[in-house]
Amino acid sequence: MAIDDITRWLAILATISMAVTGVLAIADRGVDLVSAIILGIITAVGGGTLRDLVLDVPVFWASDLVYVRIAIFFSILTFFARGFFTQPQIFRLMLYIDGLGAALFGVGGAFKTLELGFGWPLAPLMLGAITAIGGGLTRDVLAGRKTLLMSSEVYTLPVIMGSLLMLLGIYFFPQAKSESVLAGTILAFLLRSAAIHWHLSLPSWLITKTSDTAP
Amino acid sequence: MAIDDITRWLAILATISMAVTGVLAIADRGVDLVSAIILGIITAVGGGTLRDLVLDVPVFWASDLVYVRIAIFFSILTFFARGFFTQPQIFRLMLYIDGLGAALFGVGGAFKTLELGFGWPLAPLMLGAITAIGGGLTRDVLAGRKTLLMSSEVYTLPVIMGSLLMLLGIYFFPQAKSESVLAGTILAFLLRSAAIHWHLSLPSWLITKTSDTAP
Amino acid sequence: MAIDDITRWLAILATISMAVTGVLAIADRGVDLVSAIILGIITAVGGGTLRDLVLDVPVFWASDLVYVRIAIFFSILTFFARGFFTQPQIFRLMLYIDGLGAALFGVGGAFKTLELGFGWPLAPLMLGAITAIGGGLTRDVLAGRKTLLMSSEVYTLPVIMGSLLMLLGIYFFPQAKSESVLAGTILAFLLRSAAIHWHLSLPSWLITKTSDTAP
Repeated sequence: MAIDDITRWLAILATISMAVTGVLAIADRGVDLVSAIILGIITAVGGGTLRDLVLDVPVFWASDLVYVRIAIFFSILTFFARGFFTQPQIFRLMLYIDGLGAALFGVGGAFKTLELGFGWPLAPLMLGAITAIGGGLTRDVLAGRKTLLMSSEVYTLPVIMGSLLMLLGIYFFPQAKSESVLAGTILAFLLRSAAIHWHLSLPSWLITKTSDTAP
Repeated sequence: MAIDDITRWLAILATISMAVTGVLAIADRGVDLVSAIILGIITAVGGGTLRDLVLDVPVFWASDLVYVRIAIFFSILTFFARGFFTQPQIFRLMLYIDGLGAALFGVGGAFKTLELGFGWPLAPLMLGAITAIGGGLTRDVLAGRKTLLMSSEVYTLPVIMGSLLMLLGIYFFPQAKSESVLAGTILAFLLRSAAIHWHLSLPSWLITKTSDTAP
Repeated sequence: MAIDDITRWLAILATISMAVTGVLAIADRGVDLVSAIILGIITAVGGGTLRDLVLDVPVFWASDLVYVRIAIFFSILTFFARGFFTQPQIFRLMLYIDGLGAALFGVGGAFKTLELGFGWPLAPLMLGAITAIGGGLTRDVLAGRKTLLMSSEVYTLPVIMGSLLMLLGIYFFPQAKSESVLAGTILAFLLRSAAIHWHLSLPSWLITKTSDTAP
């Protein structure tokens, strides 16, 4: 299987994971099928859409609607099979798959930004993070949920660390693009997996207390 | 009156209806005139703006500010005459006019997307829905209201069905563009009117229960 | 010091003020350093990013990441020194500096829009307002805070009045661009300072009551 095929399959897997966890996240709120599909699509393609708007390139799904089709299909599937997906073990598995999706989207988004020549290294890191979390943030805002920025979940940092590894890899080994993207994605996924497995959060001196300041 | 004139008048009517219902939606929240105007403008032109950003064409109000002027004028009017607009019969009438606005904006947005050659049929359907509900969603988020995605209101589905009829009409009768847009808009408006009149919601098996899943 | 140098230093000061007040605004909510940096960046560069997306020009920070670097640095600084910044006198000073930031961003955003030839005068006024408040609104939405549109704070009106003065200045004295921008910025800052100092809000007949209408 060529590298392009692998990339494509991984992007499809990321889209599936985002759509499934996107619908699960709002399924407990009395939402109808139409809204579930809309929020599933937004979770799956929203981050990449925001990235492409900022990069001023055509949105990635305009030329190839397979990502939207997959998001719709798995949103519907998840809607009807939510009882299955919310079983503790399956839900836990979905968390890891979602972490893989965030890793793939994030490091991939950072790589796309790098290839377009945007300012190294901050622009790729920022747009990688937007690709990974932009869809979920938009869904949470539209669904009236607390966004993950306000939770103690370690979700964005793994993506940033993975993107940074990718950037450093390509900086020092300009020929090793695929390998750098792969290494960055793996690191992001491992860090996120560790955060899920051990319920990691940042140390308390890196978290403000709710009563800390109230000007 | 030529077809272009009719289209223009209908777009102006849609803008008015969106601005009026936009301001009414937040008038019970202790909002001042400046915020009311800002939220009225956002409700009226926000959806089309989001669509144009995704389509990567100049925002529709950049070249012709009449839509913004109308949104401002009717936001101010509604602010001061809110006692009039909230009378039960008038408010009910506004619901239908808002449904007409959503139908016009939605099917019009889908048609614009089709004309620009974006992937048939999903891109036109998605961007039609964004045009119809994007402004109201943005207003609700900024005003801290529950968005219509989280209500059982049948609001987006009529727009999607109308846009679909328009797409099918043009697919089978490529010469009949105006007629297809008209038929789609009428269908969207009739379905939305039915939803208002009979307080329709999707059948309960297409709605999750709030206690359904709580992973 | 040339006018360009002054403009640049003022833009940097505006960025600093936005990042600092951006982080302070969410520091009482139990937020970790990563989220604080993300929300600080969004507050500081979000409004200008939205403006540039609508204007369809490259986002202002793509070519010069100094604004992002400054936003990151001062977000971190504010995170750790939040005890200092929340002292009553310092916090009060920050309010004025934030008002200066809004004045600089708002009138500057309106001027950029004017230079690009967008419809006079509404487009510059709107995009100036978006530049000034777009970042803060996005932060508030992501942090689950009530947005300033729903407070009685007089925040946007000073920016609009300052931008209007700038537009009128350039209309009547086309040679006096710098002077008009300066005069508009000063007016916006003075009006905002007056609003802070005297706790101004719009007169009550320009504010709806929360029990006013409940359709």
